[in-house]
Amino acid sequence: MGANDHFGKPSLPARPGGSANGAAPARRRFLAQGGALATTALASLVPGEGAAAQNTPAPAAGAANLPPNVPEWERSLGAPTASPYGMPSKFEKDAIRRLYPGLTEPMSAYSTSPLQELDGSITPNGLFYERHHAGVPQIDPAQHRLMVHGLVERPLIFDMEEIRQFPSESHIYFLECSGNPSFLPPYGKTAAEVAGLVSCAQWTGVPLKTILQRVGLHKNAKWIVAEGADGASMTRSIPIEKCLDDAMLAYSQNGERLRPEQGYPLRLLVPGYEGNMNIKWLRRLHVTEAPGHTREETAKYTDLMADGRARQFSFVMECKSLITSPSGTHKLTRKGTHEMRGIAWSGRGKITHVDVSVDGGDTWKPAALQDPVFSKALTAFRAPFEWHGEELMIMSRAVDETGYVQPTLQQLIDARGKVSFYHNNAIQPWRIASNGEVTNGRS
Amino acid sequence: MGANDHFGKPSLPARPGGSANGAAPARRRFLAQGGALATTALASLVPGEGAAAQNTPAPAAGAANLPPNVPEWERSLGAPTASPYGMPSKFEKDAIRRLYPGLTEPMSAYSTSPLQELDGSITPNGLFYERHHAGVPQIDPAQHRLMVHGLVERPLIFDMEEIRQFPSESHIYFLECSGNPSFLPPYGKTAAEVAGLVSCAQWTGVPLKTILQRVGLHKNAKWIVAEGADGASMTRSIPIEKCLDDAMLAYSQNGERLRPEQGYPLRLLVPGYEGNMNIKWLRRLHVTEAPGHTREETAKYTDLMADGRARQFSFVMECKSLITSPSGTHKLTRKGTHEMRGIAWSGRGKITHVDVSVDGGDTWKPAALQDPVFSKALTAFRAPFEWHGEELMIMSRAVDETGYVQPTLQQLIDARGKVSFYHNNAIQPWRIASNGEVTNGRS
Repeated sequence: MGANDHFGKPSLPARPGGSANGAAPARRRFLAQGGALATTALASLVPGEGAAAQNTPAPAAGAANLPPNVPEWERSLGAPTASPYGMPSKFEKDAIRRLYPGLTEPMSAYSTSPLQELDGSITPNGLFYERHHAGVPQIDPAQHRLMVHGLVERPLIFDMEEIRQFPSESHIYFLECSGNPSFLPPYGKTAAEVAGLVSCAQWTGVPLKTILQRVGLHKNAKWIVAEGADGASMTRSIPIEKCLDDAMLAYSQNGERLRPEQGYPLRLLVPGYEGNMNIKWLRRLHVTEAPGHTREETAKYTDLMADGRARQFSFVMECKSLITSPSGTHKLTRKGTHEMRGIAWSGRGKITHVDVSVDGGDTWKPAALQDPVFSKALTAFRAPFEWHGEELMIMSRAVDETGYVQPTLQQLIDARGKVSFYHNNAIQPWRIASNGEVTNGRS
Repeated sequence: MGANDHFGKPSLPARPGGSANGAAPARRRFLAQGGALATTALASLVPGEGAAAQNTPAPAAGAANLPPNVPEWERSLGAPTASPYGMPSKFEKDAIRRLYPGLTEPMSAYSTSPLQELDGSITPNGLFYERHHAGVPQIDPAQHRLMVHGLVERPLIFDMEEIRQFPSESHIYFLECSGNPSFLPPYGKTAAEVAGLVSCAQWTGVPLKTILQRVGLHKNAKWIVAEGADGASMTRSIPIEKCLDDAMLAYSQNGERLRPEQGYPLRLLVPGYEGNMNIKWLRRLHVTEAPGHTREETAKYTDLMADGRARQFSFVMECKSLITSPSGTHKLTRKGTHEMRGIAWSGRGKITHVDVSVDGGDTWKPAALQDPVFSKALTAFRAPFEWHGEELMIMSRAVDETGYVQPTLQQLIDARGKVSFYHNNAIQPWRIASNGEVTNGRS
């Protein structure tokens, strides 16, 4: 018996006394009744069922004895198999990266990951946030080289084939821009505008310490100054302890080779450190005794304090969380139980718990964390909440394995003043209005 | 001091006695020397270094005092930021899905994931293998419905918004077509042709048991017959125990909504079971006392044995592994230490170990598994091996937490005969020739 017969959906128009493929009338009647039952039950038992019933497509003309809901796409062939590289549904037109609104210069710029459209903790490569200082170079991997020199026994140049010969590892880590977001208004409407410069992937590559063992470090090697092969020669200094800990030279992301905008064919990964230190298009590692004091650690990526001094080398992205659903521009259309969903992360290790509030932080209750929790990776959290048309202020607050508690914006301002720009990991509130519309609770 | 100064790469042509941006001649000489040192060391210390040195791009004319290897893409601006949805590098032209060679009918067809181009254990959505029975329907999620009826207290119809209101979970699971590959020649040249109908992703959705609790199962509910909304009305019967265990209704994959070819907007996931049972475009769950005995579990997806009987409902994809690098059509170009990389998986739980052989299975040694190992997910394994121009026959053999050991093809044929088509989880050999070329060891 074929699948169509089993459900009584004729593959040709039904004929009196039996269908073209031999399904008995009794069976078709039974199934039509089943469909009617379903519709009836829907109208009385499911929260929000009214809207669903109204939206149910009407049975095709002349098919009154068929089950309801046989949609047009089940009555025809679909698109051919094998798009060589697949793309999202045309209906997912909001799941795209966006530039900062009003930006006029797209070379030194960023685009945000649409967090409010995403689920779970892996960011698909096509939607991983971008931040470039001189655009995206198009590098031929056969021509790419990594030079390791300075305070080493054997300065060496590696090509990509050599790098891929080394023992490899795969790890899931987040990356976050240190300016995600700034302390200052405008605060943004959507989760992407508020904090869309964070993403997470499974990275594959070579532990940096493997390469450093190959070249042999001098005893006075204290820093590595890493340079990218982009037009900005993006350059940052990394303490040698980090280089010998969990730093990686990554060539793959979520299974495939790095995307051009993520550093193809090779990038540095310094898990938990601010995004710009994870040098893309990596071409040089200069082992030194002192930091380079490059533009990106003097003029930029330092934190100006209220007293006029600056925090320099503020590497670690501290513990943070964000509710992504519901979030700004979402709308609740049905009263009853909903699920609050979000992501939490810490540059210092694992998230140990996330609390959520629906009353602007007066009371809190624990959210469920999705197991397994990885160190320095996005961790999905969820918590049910009730909404019956009242105004709510929802927010989340994460704690990491060091005991660090995500602060409020006021606590950050009290500690650092209002001119500090980077490392804003404040609690983010969302307001749910009585009509269900969700907006930024910070105003 | 700017980044360019630090590395002595002038942003304008160097002038005698000093660069345009003020770097001192002494510094430039030092760095030029460093570059020379690196090239010299390369020629004597790195395995395979000769080829690298020869391929090193020559310094630009008139820039003899610059470090070598400053490539053209570091001398100019790159592409603008913010492709709304990113794509791989143009140099990754082999990392695509391919149809079975010679296939003329692309509606009931499959395309393979390019395993030989991938790393780690997550498959990017654009390269996740495809298998369709009537093409890919383009479904409007606002019009999509899931009907749950049959032996239930409250038959119900859900729209996507209702399904997303339920408590969600995220899990990493593999999917594999039961015909990956067939027992019979041709055996395929690449890892994709040999076993490219397997992929792995993080899935987010609702546990099926949550939905079944909502509708309320009758005591005699033993099976659920699941139907897809594609033109084939793809339909399979799932034992109720599996539905109440780890089965999910998934709406997201690797963070974003399902791709159309993976069942957008909703698919059934029955982790560890053969791919075709993970009904895509899921529109109906019919709770029954007996299986549907649909076309896909009678005419297809049964295993014909040598004695003429057939194994029916052979759901679980048994323990398997595959070396993906090096694999067929790869070529080793450098003698010395290489890394064997591959994937292992089992529909019965976690992989506990993988052994590898370089001598066609005469001797074995353990490979390293990438932690953490997930149940019913691809597990990356690696093992170093030496190659110095001799012929090798490399292969891998996985064991799962039930103690099941991946069999040889001969063991499978002894047990099931040669006409069995599905569920070939045999050990796969690759031959490395003396010239470094890698071919299928099965011939």
